Amino acid sequence: MPEEFPCRTHCPINFALESFGDKWTLLIIRDLMFKAKQSFGDFLSSDEKISTNILADRLRRLEQLGIVSKATSEKNRSKSIYSLTQKGRDLLPIMLEITRWSGKHDPQTHAPDALLQRLEADTPSVITQITAGWDAS
Amino acid sequence: MPEEFPCRTHCPINFALESFGDKWTLLIIRDLMFKAKQSFGDFLSSDEKISTNILADRLRRLEQLGIVSKATSEKNRSKSIYSLTQKGRDLLPIMLEITRWSGKHDPQTHAPDALLQRLEADTPSVITQITAGWDAS
Repeated sequence: MPEEFPCRTHCPINFALESFGDKWTLLIIRDLMFKAKQSFGDFLSSDEKISTNILADRLRRLEQLGIVSKATSEKNRSKSIYSLTQKGRDLLPIMLEITRWSGKHDPQTHAPDALLQRLEADTPSVITQITAGWDAS
Repeated sequence: MPEEFPCRTHCPINFALESFGDKWTLLIIRDLMFKAKQSFGDFLSSDEKISTNILADRLRRLEQLGIVSKATSEKNRSKSIYSLTQKGRDLLPIMLEITRWSGKHDPQTHAPDALLQRLEADTPSVITQITAGWDAS
């Protein structure tokens, strides 16, 4: 986290909003967390059509906040690849609860039924399964 | 929900961001959910210092989305009071997971230690306790 993080307040809800309270940041987290995307071009190709300048700004900010880390691709030394740090991975329960809420309240949701049923029945087991996959990789 | 809800996509993360993806909306939800605030003036007095025009806009939007409902105060017929609908109350697990994340990652967090310990140990029981309070009221 940058030393100067000028939070309006340290209320936990506000702290989170200062970190990812905008229309785009959690889409990048989603792409990293669930869609195996890792490059600037990968994020740019998502259906919500983020612009290059917003994407560059949000990636820089996520790096500053220690939520995302950037490395040079081993296959192509001129390409950067991004991944979630532990702080970023810790957003998983929030992402799953958001999925559950939208699955319940968006009649046109694209959230898979099978996932929604598993979340409704036992969210902790979904978390355990996903984090086990991370630990194994 | 308004008939025309021009979502970029119906990805569940995106749907949620279209509903509350900004720096202010979840602060109003927080005030309604945890701080027993219910009037325009109550929200305006919060420490993050929301402006009157943003507050009016966000309350109108939350009403349109069916997350908040507005009624006339019984004590003062010229005053509006706001409350969370069931769709708004369904945001509780998201709010608690956000609290847990910020409690872990903000060294200056104002989240109470006792709450963070309970969330870490057993979030479902915290949810049950809070929703039981709502059902009783």
